[in-house]
Amino acid sequence: MQSHTVEPEQAQARREYYDRISQQNLTPLWEVLGRLVTPTPASPAVAALWRYAEIREPLMEAGRLITAAEAERRVLVLENPALRGRSAITQTLYAGLQLVLPGEVAAAHRHTQSALRLLLEGDAAYTAVDGERTTMRRGDFILTPSWTWHDHGNPGTQPAIWLDGLDVPLVQFLDASFSERSSVATQLPVRPEGDSLKRYGANMLPVDHKVTGVSPSPVFVYPYERTRESLLGIAQGEPDKHLGFKLRYVNPATGGSPMPTIGAYAQRLPRGFETRAYRCTDGAVYVCLEGSGHAEINGTTHSFGPNDIFIVPSWNELRIHATTDTHLFSFSDRPVHQALGLWRESRE
Amino acid sequence: MQSHTVEPEQAQARREYYDRISQQNLTPLWEVLGRLVTPTPASPAVAALWRYAEIREPLMEAGRLITAAEAERRVLVLENPALRGRSAITQTLYAGLQLVLPGEVAAAHRHTQSALRLLLEGDAAYTAVDGERTTMRRGDFILTPSWTWHDHGNPGTQPAIWLDGLDVPLVQFLDASFSERSSVATQLPVRPEGDSLKRYGANMLPVDHKVTGVSPSPVFVYPYERTRESLLGIAQGEPDKHLGFKLRYVNPATGGSPMPTIGAYAQRLPRGFETRAYRCTDGAVYVCLEGSGHAEINGTTHSFGPNDIFIVPSWNELRIHATTDTHLFSFSDRPVHQALGLWRESRE
Amino acid sequence: MQSHTVEPEQAQARREYYDRISQQNLTPLWEVLGRLVTPTPASPAVAALWRYAEIREPLMEAGRLITAAEAERRVLVLENPALRGRSAITQTLYAGLQLVLPGEVAAAHRHTQSALRLLLEGDAAYTAVDGERTTMRRGDFILTPSWTWHDHGNPGTQPAIWLDGLDVPLVQFLDASFSERSSVATQLPVRPEGDSLKRYGANMLPVDHKVTGVSPSPVFVYPYERTRESLLGIAQGEPDKHLGFKLRYVNPATGGSPMPTIGAYAQRLPRGFETRAYRCTDGAVYVCLEGSGHAEINGTTHSFGPNDIFIVPSWNELRIHATTDTHLFSFSDRPVHQALGLWRESRE
Amino acid sequence: MQSHTVEPEQAQARREYYDRISQQNLTPLWEVLGRLVTPTPASPAVAALWRYAEIREPLMEAGRLITAAEAERRVLVLENPALRGRSAITQTLYAGLQLVLPGEVAAAHRHTQSALRLLLEGDAAYTAVDGERTTMRRGDFILTPSWTWHDHGNPGTQPAIWLDGLDVPLVQFLDASFSERSSVATQLPVRPEGDSLKRYGANMLPVDHKVTGVSPSPVFVYPYERTRESLLGIAQGEPDKHLGFKLRYVNPATGGSPMPTIGAYAQRLPRGFETRAYRCTDGAVYVCLEGSGHAEINGTTHSFGPNDIFIVPSWNELRIHATTDTHLFSFSDRPVHQALGLWRESRE
Repeated sequence: MQSHTVEPEQAQARREYYDRISQQNLTPLWEVLGRLVTPTPASPAVAALWRYAEIREPLMEAGRLITAAEAERRVLVLENPALRGRSAITQTLYAGLQLVLPGEVAAAHRHTQSALRLLLEGDAAYTAVDGERTTMRRGDFILTPSWTWHDHGNPGTQPAIWLDGLDVPLVQFLDASFSERSSVATQLPVRPEGDSLKRYGANMLPVDHKVTGVSPSPVFVYPYERTRESLLGIAQGEPDKHLGFKLRYVNPATGGSPMPTIGAYAQRLPRGFETRAYRCTDGAVYVCLEGSGHAEINGTTHSFGPNDIFIVPSWNELRIHATTDTHLFSFSDRPVHQALGLWRESRE
Repeated sequence: MQSHTVEPEQAQARREYYDRISQQNLTPLWEVLGRLVTPTPASPAVAALWRYAEIREPLMEAGRLITAAEAERRVLVLENPALRGRSAITQTLYAGLQLVLPGEVAAAHRHTQSALRLLLEGDAAYTAVDGERTTMRRGDFILTPSWTWHDHGNPGTQPAIWLDGLDVPLVQFLDASFSERSSVATQLPVRPEGDSLKRYGANMLPVDHKVTGVSPSPVFVYPYERTRESLLGIAQGEPDKHLGFKLRYVNPATGGSPMPTIGAYAQRLPRGFETRAYRCTDGAVYVCLEGSGHAEINGTTHSFGPNDIFIVPSWNELRIHATTDTHLFSFSDRPVHQALGLWRESRE
Repeated sequence: MQSHTVEPEQAQARREYYDRISQQNLTPLWEVLGRLVTPTPASPAVAALWRYAEIREPLMEAGRLITAAEAERRVLVLENPALRGRSAITQTLYAGLQLVLPGEVAAAHRHTQSALRLLLEGDAAYTAVDGERTTMRRGDFILTPSWTWHDHGNPGTQPAIWLDGLDVPLVQFLDASFSERSSVATQLPVRPEGDSLKRYGANMLPVDHKVTGVSPSPVFVYPYERTRESLLGIAQGEPDKHLGFKLRYVNPATGGSPMPTIGAYAQRLPRGFETRAYRCTDGAVYVCLEGSGHAEINGTTHSFGPNDIFIVPSWNELRIHATTDTHLFSFSDRPVHQALGLWRESRE
Repeated sequence: MQSHTVEPEQAQARREYYDRISQQNLTPLWEVLGRLVTPTPASPAVAALWRYAEIREPLMEAGRLITAAEAERRVLVLENPALRGRSAITQTLYAGLQLVLPGEVAAAHRHTQSALRLLLEGDAAYTAVDGERTTMRRGDFILTPSWTWHDHGNPGTQPAIWLDGLDVPLVQFLDASFSERSSVATQLPVRPEGDSLKRYGANMLPVDHKVTGVSPSPVFVYPYERTRESLLGIAQGEPDKHLGFKLRYVNPATGGSPMPTIGAYAQRLPRGFETRAYRCTDGAVYVCLEGSGHAEINGTTHSFGPNDIFIVPSWNELRIHATTDTHLFSFSDRPVHQALGLWRESRE
């Protein structure tokens, strides 16, 4: 859009014209085009970091302030500082920290929103999905895919805290939210614990397993123990200059992302490694599982340690420096971008 | 979410707590969950109808007020009455009426936004895509897919008016906008007019044509003449109770939608036919090409005739009554919903 | 395999050993490996050409010798000269010329073998597939996909002759033949003639059309009139040096081949054009629809004119010289090779 | 085909006619149709069983009779008793037992034929594929996919014996054999042993892994240790009446078969379990890894124990009775049938 000099009386005529057509729900494109079609992404979201130690405290306070019955779900939503009021950590994603106290359970429900959990504290809480229960260990990546019944509980003696990640803002934007509660509070297990991992976890599938349409992973848990072993195993070679050693979690029945709207990743950066500048169009949420370092995002440095959470909005330039051997979990809306032919990356 | 009685001092403690955690960019989920995960879609968009006769006038006025050089593109944006200021006609889509006067041309450019054109008036204007020019006739459905170079012009003697449809709000939401201008204003034709239709229009493809990744249709025009012939041809059987005779435009190289983010449809409703109540999660823009009737959307009736444009937001209940033989063109974000496993419909 | 000198007594010991293990259905690989895993394909099939004028005569004679009732189907099988007794024209394909006299009909049946028809003579015969009848014109490419009910008849006054192409040797090799006869001889039309072309022939599909698994084209006829128009249309550009102007017939619902096991192609070679040497792993059957020329196959020249049929086995070097403007129809097992990752081509 | 009475002079006329057209490479379809298009598959292959103890002896004898240099590969081919001379164990598959003596190595080569190995004896032999070496343990399922460089060796002190399975007859039938030898005898390892399993074995993939076209599994080994653990894990539920507990090996990058032409399966039948009658169109080779039992194939009973090998041709009725807890490995051409839309099964 080149700019043009407009005479005062012309300008007045235009204002009157704009007011007039506004009654008809019409807007002149030439006044707004530059904002709509930008040369590169200009995300309204900003980078941010939450220190676990600092958010754990108010979370425990919520445990005292709000009963479980009252506050199903007892979650503190991590809101992007530039998107306050939208319950969004990136444009498309929601993230929150959930506290489940010993003895608490949550009733079974389901929704079209896809969800993941990453356990940060506690070792006895479980998530049950479609009748299969999984006890969660720290770093385990748990799915509750779109429209699957799920409930959870903490039969242990210590509080359980996990990160919830959902595509809530995306589903809201697409006007595709459906939800319902089960008539039974807790699902009866129909399969023993660990069953899905036996069936789908060793590069094998039940011989009759069928994939229809866009479908989520039949595996509900990706144990950190296995992920960690893989990360250590591949770490013998040369790390990618921009990504270190980075793996993506896959749906073993398709090779696609665990859920159609959310991709998830695990990454190892050896002590002292510094990634080169990298940009991509998906907006990502990172969680530090081990180690510590600095993330330089569009020129601002954020220091992180275990359980800290930070976000990298679309097309922000990212450099990570690992001060010790570091493992990062991350999730983003990359599968959405890829399914729509919109994903790009840039490597310097 | 059941409601709970909260004592005044409790309420005060909570307010203080909320204020405190707000500093940390934290929000209590239990106060907002009901808005985020709704039982059925609750689109902020509303139904609306624009009469062509009423918007044609201000559009012609724009032709006098704004020069083409100044106002590339000379377009009036149709804004959803409930989404003013966002240049959105539905949550994910943009629509505008473009006026190109005799002798005007627009410089070649490209962007990641996918775009379609539906000619409403004039018979000499052309769109050129990747070096192939197509002269547009009324009702022709023209594509300018993501990241293809395109320009246009009107070498005729009459004004040309077309409907532009783009996925601008979606690409903006996904932070995936890239655009650039060509160093040359007008592309040199590298293929004769009509070439893509010869190559791809008769259930045949060039033997070496390859599809890689998510790709748009290699056909840039779906002439209304052919669409009309199909609609009349199939109209001998029994119409679908909810849809009449409805066809979707396809990418002949994949059977998928013409562009990854936008689906397009043509529909025939015989005189007197009344569709039964129907809902779906995609939000759609309808254009009447022939005939007239009434669209009852969530209980409100909108009368339409040739070139009128109306919208049906997600999950709004739609009934259409055709008072004469009616042909409707429509486009929506259905392929997005389907690619992400979020599409639903309901037929009463 | 390098050769080794073997002492006479050793040779004797081996023979005895071979005889002994042969009782156990064991064979020494080292004696046969060279035949099994060749450096390049060594097809047992050979190139051949049938002049239509010379096979038409015995075909008409079959019309007198054999009644329709007796000889359902009255077909002369074109057997590859090097594969006699196998009813195979290439390793995987069967081809035959079928004669249907005025007034004759064939009872409805179905089989897992995929079949195609290419009409060569007559203009009133029809094929009915799944309740839709298509009157066949010369050059029309007709499908009767796997497991679809089909019957045919000739209500005209002239004999109808068409080329049948099937994957009979492939299905036989894979042990996957199923077939059954209908209890009714002739299917009642459930859709009007031309219906599938209206629904699927203009880069549009019925909005509810679903593709499940490996599926054939929903279009049962690709009229030569449309194909010819495409060939003439694209013939304005530069021909491919190895292929001239070559199109492949596609399933409009997937972009894949019309049937999973058989690919089909139409090709235009301008007068005087000579293709450069080309090889591919699929074995193909060619039919000349218009024009005339010479096909040089592995160094031997075969002259062809209208309705003549010739074959090019896998990896045979092909050069075609068109003496007049020439249109060739061809079909092959290329989709099988491609589905299994085995297809290769070589261009000199 | 109903039969017709033919008069002697007619019969004579026909014989003369048949002889005459045979000169033109023409054959009357009506004399052969019944053989070509059968109501159900009529495989020329027959069921058979090889006892390991009985074939091990001649295999060891081959070790003395034939040097490794002379007899690269030292393999006894298991030929289907009804397909002698074709080096085929089923219509499409080849199987052989390979002996590699301590200190022997085989030079690197590659071919379009897909191959698998199942180690039966020895614990030090390795297979190297595309620069990654895998030490083979009993029951490990090893791939050497189409056109990958592979070599092997036995640095141990005991003979190694494995089952080779290839699609040699299929590739021969499709005329698609290409092969070449490496200029270097032994590949230099470019990745450490176990690398592919670290990268692809835990429901994760390298973030940049791309799938193009029809591609084989990036995992070259499916260790029996993991398979066994899965079989024992799922064996807590109810076994399928026809299949017991049956898993298929998958390509983790696609969910498809490990190689495009060969499917592989592992199956557990608890002690005393008897499968119900089952048929399918793929022809399969079974190897008993643990346990013992009886396979009743088209009414004939074959007893099997560890390392015994038996085959079930297409559409043969199979019942298996496990006398002790039994683990079976099997491979077949099912992916070929499925890719072509020809696969069927029947469960009684």
